[in-house]
Amino acid sequence: MKATVIVTLKPTVLDPQGMTIHRSLASLGLTDITDVRQGKIFQIQLKTGNREHVERLAKEVLTNPVIEEYRIVWEQ
Amino acid sequence: MKATVIVTLKPTVLDPQGMTIHRSLASLGLTDITDVRQGKIFQIQLKTGNREHVERLAKEVLTNPVIEEYRIVWEQ
Repeated sequence: MKATVIVTLKPTVLDPQGMTIHRSLASLGLTDITDVRQGKIFQIQLKTGNREHVERLAKEVLTNPVIEEYRIVWEQ
Repeated sequence: MKATVIVTLKPTVLDPQGMTIHRSLASLGLTDITDVRQGKIFQIQLKTGNREHVERLAKEVLTNPVIEEYRIVWEQ
């Protein structure tokens, strides 16, 4: 079984990496893009279907709850 | 219009960050997880629906074609 954990900054938190990418786009002529925000993605492989382990991994290891939020996408 | 660009290491490329996370899991009792691979996600906001701009951003700015691959998910 596979799961994907997507960790993104909370909408209210400033994203300096995304802002830097966005600023560089004008010089490339990519003027249609108005915002870029960066996050992390984790592809998890599970032996059995123990979803609780993925929930705990996402909550306790992969996410900083002060500034980040996560969602889990299940496959198979 | 929104787009999400997902950048991951090619399957043949070693992922030291993912391996470090995976190694730390035994001590937390998360023994059901057999593999963790880390990638990056970019949430893009577009003024109009110019998909070519997002394709170019993903290919020329966000991805290192030697070790990474990307896919684009379109919303709306």
